[in-house]
Amino acid sequence: MTITSNLAVAEKQGARDNVARLLSPRSIAMIGASNNMTGIGGRVFANLARAFKGPLYPVNPKDAEIQGHRAYKRVSEVGQPIDMAVIALSAAHVIGAIEEVAAAGIGGVVILSSGFAEAGEEGKAMQAGLREVLDRTGVRAIGPNCIGYMNNHGGVMANFALSPQEPMPKMGAVALVSQSGGLGSFITTKSLEAGIGLGWYVSTGNEVDLNVAGTLRYLVEQPDVGVLLAFCETLRDPEIFIETAKRAQALDKPLIILKAGRSDVAAKAAMSHTASVVGSAEVFDAVCRQHGVFVAESMEHMIDLAMIFQGGRRAKGDRVGVLTASGGTGVLLADESAQAGLSLPPLGEDEKQAFYEFLPTPFFGSLNNPVDVTAQPSPHPNASAEIFGRMLGSPSFDMVAAVSWAAPPYLDMITAQYNASDKPLGVLMTVPSAQLAAAGVPHFTDARRLARALRAMSDFSSRRAAKPEAAYASDPARVRRVADLLTKVPAAEAALMEHQGKQIFAEYGVPVTRETLVADADGAARAAAEIGGKVVIKGMSYAIPHKSDKGAIRVGLTGDEAIRREYGEMLADIARLAPEARLEGVLVQEMVPARMELVCGMRRDPVFGPIVALGLGGVLIEIIAETVLLRPPFGRAEALAAIDSLCGGRLTNGRRGLTAEERERVADIVLGIAALAIDHPEISEIDVNPIRVDNGKAVAADALIVLERGTNG
Amino acid sequence: MTITSNLAVAEKQGARDNVARLLSPRSIAMIGASNNMTGIGGRVFANLARAFKGPLYPVNPKDAEIQGHRAYKRVSEVGQPIDMAVIALSAAHVIGAIEEVAAAGIGGVVILSSGFAEAGEEGKAMQAGLREVLDRTGVRAIGPNCIGYMNNHGGVMANFALSPQEPMPKMGAVALVSQSGGLGSFITTKSLEAGIGLGWYVSTGNEVDLNVAGTLRYLVEQPDVGVLLAFCETLRDPEIFIETAKRAQALDKPLIILKAGRSDVAAKAAMSHTASVVGSAEVFDAVCRQHGVFVAESMEHMIDLAMIFQGGRRAKGDRVGVLTASGGTGVLLADESAQAGLSLPPLGEDEKQAFYEFLPTPFFGSLNNPVDVTAQPSPHPNASAEIFGRMLGSPSFDMVAAVSWAAPPYLDMITAQYNASDKPLGVLMTVPSAQLAAAGVPHFTDARRLARALRAMSDFSSRRAAKPEAAYASDPARVRRVADLLTKVPAAEAALMEHQGKQIFAEYGVPVTRETLVADADGAARAAAEIGGKVVIKGMSYAIPHKSDKGAIRVGLTGDEAIRREYGEMLADIARLAPEARLEGVLVQEMVPARMELVCGMRRDPVFGPIVALGLGGVLIEIIAETVLLRPPFGRAEALAAIDSLCGGRLTNGRRGLTAEERERVADIVLGIAALAIDHPEISEIDVNPIRVDNGKAVAADALIVLERGTNG
Repeated sequence: MTITSNLAVAEKQGARDNVARLLSPRSIAMIGASNNMTGIGGRVFANLARAFKGPLYPVNPKDAEIQGHRAYKRVSEVGQPIDMAVIALSAAHVIGAIEEVAAAGIGGVVILSSGFAEAGEEGKAMQAGLREVLDRTGVRAIGPNCIGYMNNHGGVMANFALSPQEPMPKMGAVALVSQSGGLGSFITTKSLEAGIGLGWYVSTGNEVDLNVAGTLRYLVEQPDVGVLLAFCETLRDPEIFIETAKRAQALDKPLIILKAGRSDVAAKAAMSHTASVVGSAEVFDAVCRQHGVFVAESMEHMIDLAMIFQGGRRAKGDRVGVLTASGGTGVLLADESAQAGLSLPPLGEDEKQAFYEFLPTPFFGSLNNPVDVTAQPSPHPNASAEIFGRMLGSPSFDMVAAVSWAAPPYLDMITAQYNASDKPLGVLMTVPSAQLAAAGVPHFTDARRLARALRAMSDFSSRRAAKPEAAYASDPARVRRVADLLTKVPAAEAALMEHQGKQIFAEYGVPVTRETLVADADGAARAAAEIGGKVVIKGMSYAIPHKSDKGAIRVGLTGDEAIRREYGEMLADIARLAPEARLEGVLVQEMVPARMELVCGMRRDPVFGPIVALGLGGVLIEIIAETVLLRPPFGRAEALAAIDSLCGGRLTNGRRGLTAEERERVADIVLGIAALAIDHPEISEIDVNPIRVDNGKAVAADALIVLERGTNG
Repeated sequence: MTITSNLAVAEKQGARDNVARLLSPRSIAMIGASNNMTGIGGRVFANLARAFKGPLYPVNPKDAEIQGHRAYKRVSEVGQPIDMAVIALSAAHVIGAIEEVAAAGIGGVVILSSGFAEAGEEGKAMQAGLREVLDRTGVRAIGPNCIGYMNNHGGVMANFALSPQEPMPKMGAVALVSQSGGLGSFITTKSLEAGIGLGWYVSTGNEVDLNVAGTLRYLVEQPDVGVLLAFCETLRDPEIFIETAKRAQALDKPLIILKAGRSDVAAKAAMSHTASVVGSAEVFDAVCRQHGVFVAESMEHMIDLAMIFQGGRRAKGDRVGVLTASGGTGVLLADESAQAGLSLPPLGEDEKQAFYEFLPTPFFGSLNNPVDVTAQPSPHPNASAEIFGRMLGSPSFDMVAAVSWAAPPYLDMITAQYNASDKPLGVLMTVPSAQLAAAGVPHFTDARRLARALRAMSDFSSRRAAKPEAAYASDPARVRRVADLLTKVPAAEAALMEHQGKQIFAEYGVPVTRETLVADADGAARAAAEIGGKVVIKGMSYAIPHKSDKGAIRVGLTGDEAIRREYGEMLADIARLAPEARLEGVLVQEMVPARMELVCGMRRDPVFGPIVALGLGGVLIEIIAETVLLRPPFGRAEALAAIDSLCGGRLTNGRRGLTAEERERVADIVLGIAALAIDHPEISEIDVNPIRVDNGKAVAADALIVLERGTNG
C-alpha cells in the first residue's frame, strides 16, 4: 500500500485528547506575545485577548506585562494547567519552545512561524526536526507557516487572518479548513460577505502534524458544526478523509471540498495509457462522490453551498416552486431548475383559487410554475407577504426559488417569511444583499447558481440513510488458494497468463468463459467438442501478453478439421512472430456472443489505493472514454449505482442497454475485482477486457493480472 | 420551410431607414407625455428631456405645457420633421395614434403600452390590428408591452427602466437587447455594478415588429457598438440572427446570447427518437457555435464576457501568466486556466533575472507559472507596479490573470498598469470592486469565471478570419435528376427504399456500397460473383423500412450455393413475416469492412430548418449518444472541424480513430447530405446508418430518405 499517514486512523486516545486541547482550549499561553502591535506577536495576542474568556498567559522574556496582562519569562513559570500554546517565534527557536511546552504539560501548539519546509533545504531539515520533537513528546500541532485558527464558539482567535480591529466574524454552524492561509482568508472574506456564519476557520499551513483531513475529523464531531468546508492542494491521510466523510454523512453534516492542483496532478499521473483515463483528479472526484462529499467547482460554488446548508434545513423532495414578478427572469430560473434536475410541478387547483385573492385583476400572469404574479399592483394590501408565505407553505413544493429586487421593505418581508418557514429558499438578486446576508437568507446573484444550490440541497436531503457499510470479509481459504496460484508465477514474470487469471477470477465470482488448457491438436479437438458451438483457441505463454500481435489467437472455429488446421497454423505463426516464446499450452475457449462489450480494470492510485474502473469497451474504447470509478470496499448497491451512472444512465435504461440480469452479472465482476484487489495487495493491475455481454450474461472473455514485482519485476 | 419571419432578410431600404429613425432619432415626439410624475407618461418624458439634445415634442390634448416644454394637442400640429414617437397611451388608443404618426411622416414608434398579446384573446386581436396598421403604413415599432429603449450615445432615454432621478448609465461599447424587460433590467443593474459601459439597451417586449434579431442587425452596424448582448425566450427570425452573427464576426464584435426556455423547448421537441437527440436547445447551441456566437450559460457568464470584451482588447494567443502573492490561490487560478484550455508557459530565463530585483530576499516564491511573489515585503519601493507591469509586458504571455485583495493603493496601481498595456487582464477579487468597475478593469470574484473569460477572449481573438462563406451552388441538372427520382415514389409512400436512396446519395458524392438490384436467385448469384468477396442480400419493398425485423436481410454470403439457398430462405421469411409486402427486387451488396460505424442524419428543426447530425454508430448508438450538429450551408472546413470535435477530439486524434483519408470521406458524406437537404426541401428526413469505416474508406451501407408528404403522406 502506498498511503502515507502521519496520523494513524486508529489514533490513540491521548493523541485525540491533545487535539481537543489544541483546538478547544480552556487555557492558552502565547510564546512570543508582544507589545509591538505592528508585529504578529502583538496582533495575535490582541486577537486572543479580545475574545478568550479563560486564562491567558503571555510569555516574553523581556516585558513584565503584555497588553495589560502579566507576562511570564518562560512557560514553565506559569504554574497553572495550560491546554494550548501559540508560538510566534523565529523558526530557529520553535523546536526549543516545544520542548518547554511538553515539559509544562501543554497539549498542543499553533506554530505561526515561517521558514520551514516552504523555505528551501535548510527549512526542510528544520521541519524534520520539528516532526521529531512532536512525535517524541506527543504534543499536537497546527502549522508551521500558517495563519493560525479561529474557534469562534470557544472565543479562540489564535490567528492573524483577522486584525484585532475588525469585528468578530458572524457566528454560525460553518467550519472552514484551508491548507493555504491566503486562499482560506480569501474564502473567509467572501463567506462573511455572503452572510455565512463562521464558527471555525483553521489554516493548516505546512501540516507537520494536523492536516486538512485530521482537522476535519475533529470538527465533524463538534455539535456546533453543521457544515464543513475544506480547501487543499494535496490531500494527506486519505483514509482519515474517507472516515470523516462517512461520519459527516452519518451526522447529517454536508462536507464540501475545493481542491487545487487538478490539472498538474492529472498531467503527472499520465504515465500509462490507463492512468491517463483514470487520472488522479478523476479518482478524487469518484471517491468524494462515493462518500457523499460535494466537490466544489469553484470558490463561489463552495460559498453557495455553505449558504444553502448553513441554516440546517432539509428538503423533503426535489419539487421547486419558482416565484417571480418578471416573466423572463422566472422562465430563466425555472429553466435552470429543470436543467439542474429539479422538478417543477404546478400549484394545486385549490391552492390556485386561494392565490387569486391576492393577485391583480385582470390577472395576466400565471399560477403554473413559474408562478408569475406580474409587476401589476395588487389591490390587496398584504399581497407580497401572502403570496410568498403561501409559496413556502405550499404542499406542492419542497423548496422555493424567488426572484427579487433589492427593495428594503420587500427584503424585510422575505426575511420574516423565511424565518416563519422551515423550507429551503433561494432568492435571486441582481447584486449581493447585505440585508439578506445579515439575516442568513440564502440569496444568489445568478439563476444557475441558485438552481444548483437547491439541487445540492435536494440531493443531500435525500441521500441514502447512512447505514454501516457491509464490511467486506475476506475468505481466508480463498486468499490462501489464490496466493498459492500467484506464488507459482516465476519471479521473472509480472503478468499472469490468461488461463491463470481466469482461474483467479472464478475464485472471486467473476463469470468467465468455459475453457480448457490443452497440449496438442488432439486435445484441442476433444475440448472443442466438449464445449460445443464455436470456439476460440489462444496460445498461452508468459512471453505473449498481447496475443493478436503474435498470431496467438484464432476465433470462430467449428469442426474437428478446422480446429486441427488452425491449431497447426497458429503454432507456426507463433514460432515465426515470437520465436523466443515458450508455449505453456493452448486454451480452447467457448466463443460467447456479445451485443456489447464492457471493460473492468483495477489500478492502484498513489493517494487512494485500489480503484476499480468500469467502462464501455470494444474497438472504440479509447475514443468513447466513458468510465466510472469506485474505491473498494463497496457494496452491491454502490456497484449497481455506478453501473447505472454510465452514459448518463443510458447503459441501463437505454434501448439495447443492459438487462436486469446482465446488470447483476456486471456487478458480480466489479465486486469480484474489488475483493481481489483488497485481498491481494501484491496485484498491481487487473484488466477484464473484454467483458462480453448478451443473453442475460456478462462474461470475462480475457484476463490480465499484473503483479507488483519490486526491483526484481 | 418552416421559418416564420416578420422582417424579411432582404429588408427594403425604406424600412431600414425607418429603423434608423426609430433607434437613432434626430427629433422625438411623445404621445401621452404628462406632467404626472408618478405615471409612465411623466417619467418617460422626464427621461427623454434630461438626455435628448434634439427637438422634443410632447403631445397631450389637455395641457399647454409639459414639464416646461410647449405641448401639442396632436402630433399633426407640430409641423416639423419628426423621426420617432414614443407612445404611452392605453392599448385601445394605440392604433389610432399610429395612423396619426404615419400621416405626420414619422418613421418609428416605441409602444410602451401593455394590454396586447400578453393580455388574453382581446389583446391578441388588438395586436393583430397593430400589426396591420404597421404593415400598411411602413411605420416601424418597438414593443408593445416593453419598457422602451436607451440609446446612450444619441441621448435617447425612451424607457422607464431607469428613473429620471438615477444617473445616466456609464457610457461604453456594450449594447444589450432583451425580449423581457424585467430580465433586461436585471442584467442592466448587474452590468452597471460590474462597470459595464452600456451604450444601448433595447427591450423588445411583444415584438410586433422589431425583435431581438432585427434589433441586433441594426446595432451590429453601429460604430459605437463593440460588444452585443442579447436575451430571448423565443428566437424569431433565425435567418436574420445568423446574418447578424456573420456580420458580428466580420466586424470583430463579440455577440453573446442568453436563452431561456431551453428545457421546455427540449421537452416539447422530444417527439421522435432522433428528435430527442437533436433537440432544439442543442440545435440553437450548434448554430451559435457554427457562427461564432457565445451562448452564455448564465447571467453572470454573460456579464463576465461583456467585462473582458468591452475594452476592445484581443489576445495574440492562449498563453496566460498568473500572478499571485498567495500560493494556494495562485495554484487554483492556474488550475482553472489550464482546465479552461489555456496554456501556462513559464517566464523566460532572462525575464526571471530582471524580476529578482523587485522580489523579497531570500525569495521562497516561484517565477514559474503561477508567478508567486509571496506575501513577504520586497525591499524595492515600487515592487508591485514593476512586477505587474513586467507580467503585462512579458513576451511569454498573451494575457494576465492576477490575484488581488481590495486594498486601494494596489487597485490604483492595477488600474494604471492596465491602462498602460493593451493586453487582456483579469483580476481575481474576493468581492466586487467599485474602483475597478469604474475604471473598466475586468475583475472577477471567482477563479473559474476569470479563467473562462480569458479563454473566451483567446477563442474570439483567434477565430478564423471571417471570409465570405463559399456559397453552396446547386447544380440544376442534378436537382432535376433527383427530383425526377423522387416523383417516381408512389404518392402513398413516404420513405424511399434503400437502393433508391443510394442512387440519390451517389448523385451527391456520398460514397455508397457497390450493389445491384436483382429479380431472382440467378441474378443474385451473378451479381454476387461480379461484386466478389462476401455480400449482403436485402429484400426491397416500401412496406419493409426495417429489414431485419422482417427477415429481409442476409449477411456475409459467399459462393453460388449459399447465395441461392439464402435467397430462397429470405423470400420465404418475408412472405411469412410481412405477407402484405410487395417485393420490388433484391439488393445484392458488397459487404464492406468496419473498424467503426458512424451515422449521419438530417432533420428539419422548426426554428432553424435543416440540421445535419453526425455521430458514433453501432449497436451502442443510443447509449453513447455522441453527436455533433451543423446547419447547412457550410463548407468543408466546418465539416472537418465538426468531425474533429466529436468525443473530445478523440475520433480523429485517438488511437484507432479516423485516418486522414477516412476523415475526408466522412466529410464527403456530411457535405453531400447537407447539399441534398438544401436542394430538396421535399425531403424531411435522411439517415445514413451505418456509415462503415475502415481501410481509408467511409461508405454508406444503408440509406433512408423520407419525404414531406403533407396530409396525404
